[in-house]
Amino acid sequence: MSRPSPTSPLRLGLIGFGCVGQGLYDILQRQPAAGFVVQRIAVKNPTKLRPLPADRFEFHADDLLDDPSLDILVEVIDDPAEAFRLVSEALRRGRRVVTANKAMVARHLPELIALQRRFGGTLLYEAAVCGSIPVIRTIDAYFGQEALPEVSGIFNGSSNYVLTGMTSAGADYATVLAEAQAQGFAETDPTLDMAAFDPRAKAVILAAHAHGRLLDPDQVLNLGIEHITAADIRFAAGRGQKIKVVACLHRLPGGGTTVFVAPQLLGPESPLYHVEREFNGVEVEAEFAGPHFWRGRGAGGHPTGSAVLADLAALRAGFRYAYPKLGALTTTLPADLEVEVYLRNLPQPLQAALALRDVSDAPAAPDRAEDYVIGYARLSLLHRHRDALRAAGAFVARTGPLRPVAEVPAPAHREPAVLAG
Amino acid sequence: MSRPSPTSPLRLGLIGFGCVGQGLYDILQRQPAAGFVVQRIAVKNPTKLRPLPADRFEFHADDLLDDPSLDILVEVIDDPAEAFRLVSEALRRGRRVVTANKAMVARHLPELIALQRRFGGTLLYEAAVCGSIPVIRTIDAYFGQEALPEVSGIFNGSSNYVLTGMTSAGADYATVLAEAQAQGFAETDPTLDMAAFDPRAKAVILAAHAHGRLLDPDQVLNLGIEHITAADIRFAAGRGQKIKVVACLHRLPGGGTTVFVAPQLLGPESPLYHVEREFNGVEVEAEFAGPHFWRGRGAGGHPTGSAVLADLAALRAGFRYAYPKLGALTTTLPADLEVEVYLRNLPQPLQAALALRDVSDAPAAPDRAEDYVIGYARLSLLHRHRDALRAAGAFVARTGPLRPVAEVPAPAHREPAVLAG
Repeated sequence: MSRPSPTSPLRLGLIGFGCVGQGLYDILQRQPAAGFVVQRIAVKNPTKLRPLPADRFEFHADDLLDDPSLDILVEVIDDPAEAFRLVSEALRRGRRVVTANKAMVARHLPELIALQRRFGGTLLYEAAVCGSIPVIRTIDAYFGQEALPEVSGIFNGSSNYVLTGMTSAGADYATVLAEAQAQGFAETDPTLDMAAFDPRAKAVILAAHAHGRLLDPDQVLNLGIEHITAADIRFAAGRGQKIKVVACLHRLPGGGTTVFVAPQLLGPESPLYHVEREFNGVEVEAEFAGPHFWRGRGAGGHPTGSAVLADLAALRAGFRYAYPKLGALTTTLPADLEVEVYLRNLPQPLQAALALRDVSDAPAAPDRAEDYVIGYARLSLLHRHRDALRAAGAFVARTGPLRPVAEVPAPAHREPAVLAG
Repeated sequence: MSRPSPTSPLRLGLIGFGCVGQGLYDILQRQPAAGFVVQRIAVKNPTKLRPLPADRFEFHADDLLDDPSLDILVEVIDDPAEAFRLVSEALRRGRRVVTANKAMVARHLPELIALQRRFGGTLLYEAAVCGSIPVIRTIDAYFGQEALPEVSGIFNGSSNYVLTGMTSAGADYATVLAEAQAQGFAETDPTLDMAAFDPRAKAVILAAHAHGRLLDPDQVLNLGIEHITAADIRFAAGRGQKIKVVACLHRLPGGGTTVFVAPQLLGPESPLYHVEREFNGVEVEAEFAGPHFWRGRGAGGHPTGSAVLADLAALRAGFRYAYPKLGALTTTLPADLEVEVYLRNLPQPLQAALALRDVSDAPAAPDRAEDYVIGYARLSLLHRHRDALRAAGAFVARTGPLRPVAEVPAPAHREPAVLAG
């Protein structure tokens, strides 16, 4: 079959027709001059009602991988395992692929990079991180030549929408979550978003581009807001702060990287304080360019479809990620640091297990219904006890800076004095 | 002479060694792994004291254009006319060139694009607009596939530094300007920055990438802050607002574009309200991706040098601007609209010449030292009378929305009634 001439539209094989797939399809219908046409659409469920005529759909995605008339494959399905099977198979055939599946990319990035190097295909995934914000491309291609000591941000629009609702309306978590679900800003199963698995995947992807570090998502701490209450919001407000779920990529002077996601108390001096509802925000500290901040819509069919379209145009222009800071394709552990945290509803055994240091006594407050402590905790211990914290209904939020893990001072022990003679 | 192998560093010919040139040089010295080496440096003045040994410099920039061993030419001199002569000559030889000269690019963009098309060279100029913020590349390459109804922002760090000082310290213009000059945040001749010629050039450049419009800078309205007083700052504060110099690129539904730069009163709901000191901020409204905001350092040797380095890396990767929205290489006029403005110290003849509409009576205020009016003015009339406004010491600031130019209602005239028979 002949290849299209340079001026012909590029032919897309679209795998998946959910929120992102429909967003992309709609944008391309309204932008015929963009130079892309959806040639084939593969979906999973033959009986689901869809907004296009039934003859637009087929049900064997593998058939699209085999079709040489398709210039680019766009994978936008929900299932990470099936997405990896399809994308890795396409890359094994040297194809050009765009995906929006953050969980899949975060878990399989070393293999996905290796497959591109071996078979010459290209994979782009801008839509996987922060929706319409061009964060991956900018960090990879624009800031590829300089160190980025810190990259942090609000990477999940659903939990931010809930936090904005709780803060502005004084409502409780369950009420606001139900409203967010009704309005389409939160999934029916909210765990991935509210327990911060989703922003953790995005942080793992960015760590590869920003710091050249490949991390196993399971090794990265994620703390969420499933157990937040109005009391926590009030506690933050009493300090002039808001609570936001912040992903933090922190490069250590020695070259290591710490990556974790946790609720954090922030004041108005932080640009993230002003990121509300379903928006995402990213702060980048660049060695020479200085501090940067980007804000945009983190979710939604059109914004995410727009990011997929930007990847399609980039593929047409010959762009590929350079991974400019990446060394060997081996995963490393995030470096361990101590972080100042607020912990509420923390059972005594867990408090002991976390070995908190420099604990401030909580000031007595007559209107305070529950107890909390503030102290320094090691990220590695928070990670080890994360499931126990969730099971106990504890809420944990970062309140202050990172610092090196303190050496436990040795017990007092005096050497006999040696008199110089 | 043999070409360098792909792994050899690319050899740069650096023309100019002021703030940006030294910033780039310093970054490259600290980043030997970036893959670029400054091979030759041409400067104008043979007697000036410089921070490198004298044998690093030569004095005939044309010699660099002729040197086939140089992979990329970097033009970072002050003089726009000489910069155009050198860059256009280099493009005529099909060379790869990076420039930071906004005035030159804004004035000669049609020729610069035509030369690249004819001779196959490439010109990048990210450092010309908003220092370290990747605004041109993102608008050209990432948002090239969708309409951008509005692009606006703070494009000049010097005037923003002065406004921040006036607002926070309550000081007058001359005092803060002198302090900014002493700290290196404003030039000795402040006209280009304070009278908004500099942000106008940047707006003209962005109009080509964002809206596909080539404009003659002289046809674009620029109003500055040379005549701002503490009374204006107080007036804004009384409305809960700050004054910022905002460049506005506004795309009309019919396809035209309005571009102008003027002081503007903004409240805390605007992201630009929070952009202080020498920082720049850019707001982009994208048809599908929605609202975006970017903030970063707008000036300085390292931030601007970082933007030049990003262009060098982009050239190495084969990147070139696509100008995705550009049609014919002809300049057009900005579309005319009416804008709500605050005008203080406006002589009566000028008030008549501006033909203000819907003028609000200024409320009586006993502590108000000077008179002002608020009303709608046509951008074209403000442009026609810009020099007279400056000469009269008037201060003009946008206070409200844009609207179509109103038709002057015809004088009352009654047709004789025709009775239907």
